[in-house]
Amino acid sequence: MNIVKYPSQAQWAALMQRAATVNNDARAVVADIIANVRQHGDEALREYASRFDRITLADIKVSAFEFEEAEALVSQELKDSIAQAKSNIEAFHAAQRMQEIEVETMPGVVCRQRAVPITSVGLYIPGGNSPLFSTVLMLAVPAKIAGCRNIVMCTPAGRDGKVHPAILYTAALCGVDEVYKVGGAQAVAAMACGTETVKRVSKIFGPGNRWVMEAKMQVSSAGVAIDMPAGPSEVMIIADASAQAAHVASDFLSQAEHGPDSQSILLTTSEALAEQLPEVTEELLNQLPRREMMEKSLSHSHVIVLHDDEEMMRFANEYAPEHLIINHASADALALEVENAGSVFLGPYSPESAGDYASGTNHTLPTSGYATAYSGVNLDSFTKKITFQQLSREGIESLAQSVMTMAEAEDLMAHRIAVAVRVGKK
Amino acid sequence: MNIVKYPSQAQWAALMQRAATVNNDARAVVADIIANVRQHGDEALREYASRFDRITLADIKVSAFEFEEAEALVSQELKDSIAQAKSNIEAFHAAQRMQEIEVETMPGVVCRQRAVPITSVGLYIPGGNSPLFSTVLMLAVPAKIAGCRNIVMCTPAGRDGKVHPAILYTAALCGVDEVYKVGGAQAVAAMACGTETVKRVSKIFGPGNRWVMEAKMQVSSAGVAIDMPAGPSEVMIIADASAQAAHVASDFLSQAEHGPDSQSILLTTSEALAEQLPEVTEELLNQLPRREMMEKSLSHSHVIVLHDDEEMMRFANEYAPEHLIINHASADALALEVENAGSVFLGPYSPESAGDYASGTNHTLPTSGYATAYSGVNLDSFTKKITFQQLSREGIESLAQSVMTMAEAEDLMAHRIAVAVRVGKK
Repeated sequence: MNIVKYPSQAQWAALMQRAATVNNDARAVVADIIANVRQHGDEALREYASRFDRITLADIKVSAFEFEEAEALVSQELKDSIAQAKSNIEAFHAAQRMQEIEVETMPGVVCRQRAVPITSVGLYIPGGNSPLFSTVLMLAVPAKIAGCRNIVMCTPAGRDGKVHPAILYTAALCGVDEVYKVGGAQAVAAMACGTETVKRVSKIFGPGNRWVMEAKMQVSSAGVAIDMPAGPSEVMIIADASAQAAHVASDFLSQAEHGPDSQSILLTTSEALAEQLPEVTEELLNQLPRREMMEKSLSHSHVIVLHDDEEMMRFANEYAPEHLIINHASADALALEVENAGSVFLGPYSPESAGDYASGTNHTLPTSGYATAYSGVNLDSFTKKITFQQLSREGIESLAQSVMTMAEAEDLMAHRIAVAVRVGKK
Repeated sequence: MNIVKYPSQAQWAALMQRAATVNNDARAVVADIIANVRQHGDEALREYASRFDRITLADIKVSAFEFEEAEALVSQELKDSIAQAKSNIEAFHAAQRMQEIEVETMPGVVCRQRAVPITSVGLYIPGGNSPLFSTVLMLAVPAKIAGCRNIVMCTPAGRDGKVHPAILYTAALCGVDEVYKVGGAQAVAAMACGTETVKRVSKIFGPGNRWVMEAKMQVSSAGVAIDMPAGPSEVMIIADASAQAAHVASDFLSQAEHGPDSQSILLTTSEALAEQLPEVTEELLNQLPRREMMEKSLSHSHVIVLHDDEEMMRFANEYAPEHLIINHASADALALEVENAGSVFLGPYSPESAGDYASGTNHTLPTSGYATAYSGVNLDSFTKKITFQQLSREGIESLAQSVMTMAEAEDLMAHRIAVAVRVGKK
């Protein structure tokens, strides 16, 4: 863990450097996979399952029996926890529903904006060591609230040909319509193109490894929407002397276990906190599994001592962190200064874990500085905002002169005539 | 103009076909331009201006003097029209401001969502025959309302080395901070990477030819946000026997003058209207310039007679048109059935021209079926929605069990410990 005291402005850029995600080698492979799935459909998916995952897929679609089986395997304690999280996520995302907006901009000129659900959405849930049923909650709950009619999900099966029970249980609970045992770039391809079994969708959500990410970028260039581009996860913590080192250390470690590329950065005005942190982190690390991976992640983390709150906020806004924890006596005031961040955690009792699972906010957030321009997943992500306008005879008459003058100035004479014929002018 | 009566469902896909936009040849050229601008900055911009536009760029940035000069060249009539349009666009986009949302999902667990402006945005305004000052209005007005701090604009200069006065006048009126005389893919590259003169931005908006579009797709894969992917413009008109053929014909023609790739489709239950349309269109066409281009565009337009309103709405929702005109006695009722469209125009007096210029709605809209998942440009496009959460000691205690259980079930033990240390558990 690298401690830097009072870096000059010239040193900032280097401290803000993210792990480079070069994906050039994935490009051709993924393009091939997409072309193959587009052409051969289910057959291609079966071939990849056999080649990459070493499993024979009898049915691509998870059966009703498998859902029942999964439900029986999830403990009551976990079911209760999931129910709690779901209820909070529902409450916060339902509050994001927008009312239809209607403005009469001039007499007889009525403009409206209405949120309409995206009809078909696809959720990708990665396989691997961590069965990310929490991500099922984060994507399926707002999709359902938005009113998406078809909600499908792809997730790889394990070596036993089955999907993790907590994932299936959560998917059924949240109203996911169909779950397919497909992982990797081929899952993204299947949802983008459709196959005999997998329903085609208009927008694809969810995290994944670099193959999945590359596939999402490629299908998005070809017309299927995606939630957002994504890189390794990251947290920035702003802390003053009021913050407990154990809290900060535990936040560093929970970020570290997202993967070896994860990055944690502490900004602090407290030299004492900065100096305590490595030791306290080491103590906690001793109680945890996955030491090697966590150490790799911690190796590109930074502890940065800055002069004052203003400098910390400037640094944070320039970095645009995915997660920003403000563990600071003036957290409320600093929150008002946040310009670029995915999600912000205020005060000593708001660890990232709370928002990762159960407080109600979404955990699918912009990484890699994308927070300068992108929002995390929210109810909007599952809707389009469509505008409507209705002009009365009076309305078109009062607007006619402006439109005709502007159309003529842009040399678009047919635009002019479309108004002229309606108001009886030449 | 192709008239098809009562096509079977099997024929629909062919009728919905968009002009293919193959951009493969642009890919390498644009990648080169981006790399060159990234490396050589202003020098590269000067080189392209000389090579592509045959002009010598003394200053890349438009000077205060040039703004003054432009203002003097715009007629009072056009200024009044622009003022009218601006006022309507402001009224409708200001109404889209969202209130901060706050929900206490459990006692002591407060979640908030707040819209925060994107700090730096870049607008691209194409050159060519039509000086699209209306697009300046559509992009700069909401950017200003959203509160974007830096609003810059690129647009190519003409052979005389100057930008069209209406474009400069509108940019100044709407509060664009800096205008650069740069067009094409190099303009997108300059705003994405920044040069000595051109400020780097986080999101790029605006239409353009296929080079510009390809550049936007490439920079968006590299981390700069864009408004949306785009293809040729299109209109779908739903009309019953109440619609006047001259209105429909004028809407076809105003679509046609957007470019030779533009597409217009009429869906109607009235055979009489369908049969009248070619002749009425021809009459209007005789009064207009650009006949050759308009005929090319009309050649891939369709007039489709369908059985009933339900079938028309189903067709329209499947096509997902950029512009949807419902010139129909039951326009209000049908508006409620719209699932996929960029912007909708209701009744006989709502031509696309109204929304293109001055009614208040935005004219930067999703083409090519993107309306299934994308919104047109609106106030959201210039903001990020950031979430905040604040847990009290009571809040973390009531949430602790759920988070710890779920973290353990996902095998993320450090996530668990971040809660445990805060509530004094192991």
